[in-house]
Amino acid sequence: MQTTLRIHTRGAGLTEFTPEVQALVERHGREASLASLFVQHTSCSLLIQENADPDVCRDLRAFFDRMVPDANDPAMRYLTHRAEGPDDMPAHIKAAVLPVSLNVPIAGGALALGTWQGLYLFEHRSAPHERKVVVTLI
Amino acid sequence: MQTTLRIHTRGAGLTEFTPEVQALVERHGREASLASLFVQHTSCSLLIQENADPDVCRDLRAFFDRMVPDANDPAMRYLTHRAEGPDDMPAHIKAAVLPVSLNVPIAGGALALGTWQGLYLFEHRSAPHERKVVVTLI
Amino acid sequence: MQTTLRIHTRGAGLTEFTPEVQALVERHGREASLASLFVQHTSCSLLIQENADPDVCRDLRAFFDRMVPDANDPAMRYLTHRAEGPDDMPAHIKAAVLPVSLNVPIAGGALALGTWQGLYLFEHRSAPHERKVVVTLI
Repeated sequence: MQTTLRIHTRGAGLTEFTPEVQALVERHGREASLASLFVQHTSCSLLIQENADPDVCRDLRAFFDRMVPDANDPAMRYLTHRAEGPDDMPAHIKAAVLPVSLNVPIAGGALALGTWQGLYLFEHRSAPHERKVVVTLI
Repeated sequence: MQTTLRIHTRGAGLTEFTPEVQALVERHGREASLASLFVQHTSCSLLIQENADPDVCRDLRAFFDRMVPDANDPAMRYLTHRAEGPDDMPAHIKAAVLPVSLNVPIAGGALALGTWQGLYLFEHRSAPHERKVVVTLI
Repeated sequence: MQTTLRIHTRGAGLTEFTPEVQALVERHGREASLASLFVQHTSCSLLIQENADPDVCRDLRAFFDRMVPDANDPAMRYLTHRAEGPDDMPAHIKAAVLPVSLNVPIAGGALALGTWQGLYLFEHRSAPHERKVVVTLI
């Protein structure tokens, strides 16, 4: 079974979509042992992270914004791909460092995530986007 | 076939578990073509790296400790999630940068790793932990 | 179906090999739903990135060369694994940060990549190499 989820982001930051994938697995994944996720973009990422304390998501975003500052930052003067603004190339760099594909095991018709693990779409562009995640159950 | 391995870590650093996965594949993976690994935690990672010279593991740890210093470091003053101590949020950040899931091909009933590749559990917390890795053979 | 592609690199930088995988999928992947890619080395990486503007690849390389400078750089004095020269350990570090395995969904007998996504081999060593990528269709 393969389907495409559409995740709406509100600009840079993390959006959890564990329930959407969990629902898919419950409906179609009774016989499956693996959910393979793939995001069809090069300026956002998939991420599995703690979903208990929202500070974790804020701190993650703060870290990656310091690791890869906007192209306006003097430290990023060497960047040449600037067609779509100062968040364009930094978004590609973050998308190289963070996952484009993820596999999550399925056990007993449910995602076998750890107690604190949630599935996130990490938007790296400043503006809101609709992002497509292909989910394949195997 | 799906099973959960328990890897005991001795605090921050890399623990190789290639033989455990190799043994599983030899016992149950005769017909399989892929081993999918998934770690059920958000403060440690999976990693495939050189297992010939132990200096590689030491240098990897040294790099990531400089890239993401403890929360006590003045450079990390902006971190807000500190519930479990100065290694808490840095462990989550390292777990975002390094893999939570990995796929290794199986050929002829054995892991098709390169000559120098080993499978590691990279512990990011200071204290020893028992870590669960779900292995799915497909 | 499982096969090994050989990618020839011309030293550090990104080499696209989307057409080679697309051809494999068209020939053997009519019934497949997933292409799993695995690189059998610890000093190069797989990467999915924008293949429209070549500046993106140049900027990506520039970023990672600044993030992980050669071992000759004073900032990297702490590195101990130097057997194969100043690009040896930095290549292992880049190979830890960037993907060793990737999954791409297959739909209608073709790779279901996004409009701007291309498959790349990211060489981290200075010298040209022949790199092996195992492709498993599921």
